[in-house]
Amino acid sequence: MTPPVTTVVITGVGLIGGSFALALRKAGFTGRMIGVSSPATVEKALAAGVIDEALPLAEAAAQADVIYLAQPIQQILETLGALDRYARPGALITDAGSTKAMICSHAAANIRKASFVGGHPMAGKESRGVEAADAELFRGRPYVLTAREPELEKWIEAIGARLVILDPTEHDRLVALVSHLPQLLSTALASVIAEQPGSEKVAGPAASDLTRLALSPYEIWRDIFATNAPSIDAVLGTYIARLETLRVQLRSPEMERVFEKAASSARELRKG
Amino acid sequence: MTPPVTTVVITGVGLIGGSFALALRKAGFTGRMIGVSSPATVEKALAAGVIDEALPLAEAAAQADVIYLAQPIQQILETLGALDRYARPGALITDAGSTKAMICSHAAANIRKASFVGGHPMAGKESRGVEAADAELFRGRPYVLTAREPELEKWIEAIGARLVILDPTEHDRLVALVSHLPQLLSTALASVIAEQPGSEKVAGPAASDLTRLALSPYEIWRDIFATNAPSIDAVLGTYIARLETLRVQLRSPEMERVFEKAASSARELRKG
Repeated sequence: MTPPVTTVVITGVGLIGGSFALALRKAGFTGRMIGVSSPATVEKALAAGVIDEALPLAEAAAQADVIYLAQPIQQILETLGALDRYARPGALITDAGSTKAMICSHAAANIRKASFVGGHPMAGKESRGVEAADAELFRGRPYVLTAREPELEKWIEAIGARLVILDPTEHDRLVALVSHLPQLLSTALASVIAEQPGSEKVAGPAASDLTRLALSPYEIWRDIFATNAPSIDAVLGTYIARLETLRVQLRSPEMERVFEKAASSARELRKG
Repeated sequence: MTPPVTTVVITGVGLIGGSFALALRKAGFTGRMIGVSSPATVEKALAAGVIDEALPLAEAAAQADVIYLAQPIQQILETLGALDRYARPGALITDAGSTKAMICSHAAANIRKASFVGGHPMAGKESRGVEAADAELFRGRPYVLTAREPELEKWIEAIGARLVILDPTEHDRLVALVSHLPQLLSTALASVIAEQPGSEKVAGPAASDLTRLALSPYEIWRDIFATNAPSIDAVLGTYIARLETLRVQLRSPEMERVFEKAASSARELRKG
């Protein structure tokens, strides 16, 4: 029987960190919610009632039962390098980074007094920052943990997310396919279209659908590419080989079976 | 001064043919609208008031001032092969096929008594058939003509579409990029995802966006691939080369510029 969690610290009170704080509150959490963030973010987060108070990392960590790292990946890695010094023995640390293998191995090498379980809430929206925080952001969406952890599993259920347990390497391999590859396909398409004058005159819904992700800011992707390059390289290789096959099959009857299989996969993805 | 158009014949009274009939009516056309289609479609089109009457091709063509071919591409090619025999001297023939070079050269080789100008309304929706016909389908959307033609240009303006004049080869090259390539990218992604068990557990909005086109039925695409293979092959080659470049640049600072250029292209496409 673990003691009840009375103090949660959130580092990086942006869309994800802020939404997690609001969702936890809505699910009935009655303890203290401490934010660690930039002065500008802290001011907005306090004004919006997303956090109860704000402290520097060292002081916050010293009081935390649970520390939730919701910064960009590189900052999560830096925080993990410093955190063991400040954390209370037995505290639970988790994160919300979009790649998991590098974060989990960095945690294993640096966190000794506390325990760490990696996390990845598969949720987001176009607007960012604590202003966009939303207690319902995680509802119905996958929430990956890299290992079983009763307290986190209880919370994930309470905020309405769907628990998925995946080891860090498997997680990174799968998101390379369903998230990082789509981003690159969209960016590549928009960049090829940019080089064809006149194409915007005939572009319709197909081009819009496929280039929406290309609007994403690079700052999020820099860290993802830096921490998941081998898996992304592998899926790019698989995908390019598939396009080369389709290119050869373009006018062959085989194409009908390819379309049927792809449509069935696309329908499957929508059952969610 | 050309005589006024009093009789329009539409072959293939489906979503596009039916919508064109309704849009023309709404724009003030007061002449006769004759449909040439299967008995089942004719029955629905008459009941819905989309056409005034239905006739076999030979009888309909003999009365037409304008003949609008809205069948699948292969059937348009077949109709063009037979039509010169039935058409009135001086009639105007146009079509709504998704590729233009093969149709225009087939028309040039077969139509002598009448004149032909190729067309491609860049519009559609997920539901098909005359039941889905909609007078507003073309509003705000590009409508390509392969040559200037005053009567057709007047109608295109009247139904609210945006006129784009493109020669058939240029049209096919551009739609290979903005329409046919996106379809293949989506089909390829869905088929690669289908082979990775577990990926559906972590698939989010990115995978949904990029696999939506993979739901399209093959029967439309068979004719497009059959009549535009060289252009599609060329854009696939360009695109694969771009992916290979991105693969090499994955962790390089160059990637930031690629993302910025792609985002700017994606925003440009959305200005319509």
